[in-house]
Amino acid sequence: MRKKENFSEWYPEVIEKANLSDKRYPIKGMNVWTPYGWKAMRLIDRFIRREFDATGHDEVCFPLLIPEDQFKKEADHIKGFEEWVYWVTHAGTTELDVRLLLRPTSETAMYPVFALWVRSHADLPLKIYQIVNVFRYETKQTRAFMRVREIHFFESHTCHDSFEDAERQIAENIEIIERLGKEYCLPYILCRRPEWDKFAGAYYTIGIDSLMPTGRTLQLGSIHQYRTNFSEPYNITYEDEKGEHKPVHQTTFGMAERLLGAVIAIHGDDKGVLFPPQIAPIQVVIVPILAKGSKTEVTDQCNEVYHELKESGVRVHLDERDLRPGNKFYDWEAKGVPLRIEIGKQDLTANVVTVVRRDNMNKDMIQRKGMASKVKEMLKQIQGDLRTRSEEEMRENIVLINSLDEVKSGVMMMGWCGEEECGHEIEDQTNLSILGEPVGSEEFEGKCIVCGKETKTPICAAKTY
Amino acid sequence: MRKKENFSEWYPEVIEKANLSDKRYPIKGMNVWTPYGWKAMRLIDRFIRREFDATGHDEVCFPLLIPEDQFKKEADHIKGFEEWVYWVTHAGTTELDVRLLLRPTSETAMYPVFALWVRSHADLPLKIYQIVNVFRYETKQTRAFMRVREIHFFESHTCHDSFEDAERQIAENIEIIERLGKEYCLPYILCRRPEWDKFAGAYYTIGIDSLMPTGRTLQLGSIHQYRTNFSEPYNITYEDEKGEHKPVHQTTFGMAERLLGAVIAIHGDDKGVLFPPQIAPIQVVIVPILAKGSKTEVTDQCNEVYHELKESGVRVHLDERDLRPGNKFYDWEAKGVPLRIEIGKQDLTANVVTVVRRDNMNKDMIQRKGMASKVKEMLKQIQGDLRTRSEEEMRENIVLINSLDEVKSGVMMMGWCGEEECGHEIEDQTNLSILGEPVGSEEFEGKCIVCGKETKTPICAAKTY
Repeated sequence: MRKKENFSEWYPEVIEKANLSDKRYPIKGMNVWTPYGWKAMRLIDRFIRREFDATGHDEVCFPLLIPEDQFKKEADHIKGFEEWVYWVTHAGTTELDVRLLLRPTSETAMYPVFALWVRSHADLPLKIYQIVNVFRYETKQTRAFMRVREIHFFESHTCHDSFEDAERQIAENIEIIERLGKEYCLPYILCRRPEWDKFAGAYYTIGIDSLMPTGRTLQLGSIHQYRTNFSEPYNITYEDEKGEHKPVHQTTFGMAERLLGAVIAIHGDDKGVLFPPQIAPIQVVIVPILAKGSKTEVTDQCNEVYHELKESGVRVHLDERDLRPGNKFYDWEAKGVPLRIEIGKQDLTANVVTVVRRDNMNKDMIQRKGMASKVKEMLKQIQGDLRTRSEEEMRENIVLINSLDEVKSGVMMMGWCGEEECGHEIEDQTNLSILGEPVGSEEFEGKCIVCGKETKTPICAAKTY
Repeated sequence: MRKKENFSEWYPEVIEKANLSDKRYPIKGMNVWTPYGWKAMRLIDRFIRREFDATGHDEVCFPLLIPEDQFKKEADHIKGFEEWVYWVTHAGTTELDVRLLLRPTSETAMYPVFALWVRSHADLPLKIYQIVNVFRYETKQTRAFMRVREIHFFESHTCHDSFEDAERQIAENIEIIERLGKEYCLPYILCRRPEWDKFAGAYYTIGIDSLMPTGRTLQLGSIHQYRTNFSEPYNITYEDEKGEHKPVHQTTFGMAERLLGAVIAIHGDDKGVLFPPQIAPIQVVIVPILAKGSKTEVTDQCNEVYHELKESGVRVHLDERDLRPGNKFYDWEAKGVPLRIEIGKQDLTANVVTVVRRDNMNKDMIQRKGMASKVKEMLKQIQGDLRTRSEEEMRENIVLINSLDEVKSGVMMMGWCGEEECGHEIEDQTNLSILGEPVGSEEFEGKCIVCGKETKTPICAAKTY
């Protein structure tokens, strides 16, 4: 499996080999979450829940179906989505009076209800989230976790009494992304999208983009500042302390199973998937090396080590299948288990266990006594190394250019005067898409790469998925 | 709110007052899970996951949409569901070649894929489950958690190499139900449904029925033995040790958000909902009783107690709203928090905290020191009392009758010869529905209540929801 030479073949192959998703379901782009893939996804879900809960969001679950008339209240929103939605037109043998659509995102499901929930300033901020599947009729080529038609999705929706409070929410979301990036060894850049590429109905959109091994970026999620664009048509108002009724200010923050796709794409190698320990469904696999005459002792030791690790909170698996160790190694390397423990007769004699790191294949022996804490330390080390390596790789591939001739693979940064015309010129000449102005970047002074006008605005552009 | 006099009014009222569900969503029967209701549901989800994981089931997630042609492979199944399904006919502006339906249950989504997953006897038993929403176009009156059109659903599906192994699975499921009933103080009876009322496609069906305060039963879930009824049309076969290809034997086990509805209906009272501690989103609420001159000390003490309980694993909430204690009491009683702690100046002086049980409103003072373990003991006590009380209530309402004239409210048990004709006669004469033969009941000797034939088969019948 040649990741560098042919990423588009490599990616589905490693997913299939690791059995993370089954794409043989009879609807294209709607894949089955296998037990192993779902375990990884649920670890991400758990992290997301912890983050949202800790920042005062309440989890809810809104209905999947949205009546057509509710959906059409915000004009830009429907325009942005009408090519994408699945329509329910019949129930049983009855034709429905009002067509229902499968949520592509939940603004239009939630906002009629928010109008009932929000009454006064005391109800604000309203901060909720849900973890549900959403549906988008993709016409481009589908790809497991990256571009599918049923998408495992996280969405938070908030209502505030002012633009400033909504902005504070966006700052909080950016902090959540920072922690998420660390947890999953996922480097990213945040860019405020240009006007012509913002979310349907948003006042502005911040995209969260990660860089794939092909030099293209993949959008992992986005944050939207809506101002009152939705609260006005949906009539979500609150009574302020003076008794005046005002529309609320809203934000949303959405991410999806692409997080898992990005982890696979960034960290995998020619042996298969490589999970950073924090997201690994199995962090340590124990493979007994059985030889005649030592089977019982080795098996006992494996069981002891298994229980010791399990009790100390490690996600550990003992592979007792009737297969040769080499075959097991191959399997677990493909499945991306970050650390392998081998226990054989020699290990018993020397009072050690043999450990092999999946990321660099370094083999080591550690003392049997105190093994669990050493293993946990090694997992931390692997986690740190993967993070550093991937962050460096991303940094190296963000390149400041002064002329459109310098465009190469990766994220190109350049000066931009802010005019839409020059923006389109960049896209047309280079075949890149503008990601937007990097959020929180250092001060910049330069010239618009198209018209040469002095500017303080840098802009990023890249080939995108 | 008069539970006894008017259950059908009482039930939606207590749900609304406790804010467990919002039925103002613009599609009838599709309700919003509010933060409080969703917390209760997620506690049930957690228990279900723990049970299925501990019994060797793997969690998966299959697509929501099912192509019409796959759905129609098992003839009885489609007949049973065709009045119930929502049809997707368009995507974007395109009319689909093959209509897609929203899963009403996942047999027909999973089984084409099981046919790919199961190859040999080494792949068996295959035991999987998923927690997803399913969709049924209910035409009867809808009712939160009890009869809705988008249903939060648990379903396990298993494949076995023999009928006997599938029967063992069903015995395991019955054990899971037993633990669930204890955890949620939910008494139930298991009945093997009569032939004319089994699940569409099943060889036999066991219904899990609970008794509502109205004397009607509510089906909480069901277990199905499919034999090879699905594996034959879906071609799910395995190669046995002799190299022969055989269809697998299948079972399913499904339950839904009705578990929550039943808890509310059984344990609630005229003050509102009453959660058994194991399912209570908030187990203990602390209400400060503030008087002039002692505010700081009382607030500090409340905070200390809060943290002490939280650290010892209790789901605790400190109500610091600017409201009178009486209003807070009223709120939390409606929301069903099983234990209230009041802390005022006198409590400080006496080194105690005041505790009030929601189930019997008994007020008590407990020593501040060692308070947390006493509170946990009290929660256990409440849990036990609610269980005993509800089990007794159910037992008292299962009545053995010898003549159809004796029919009254509750579950009627009677002799039945086993003939369908006599079964229908019972239903027609009494307006009851036959639940079926109780599973695991004691030996019975009696006469068919219709034809008088000697029989060893008792049967249960009741008015049902």
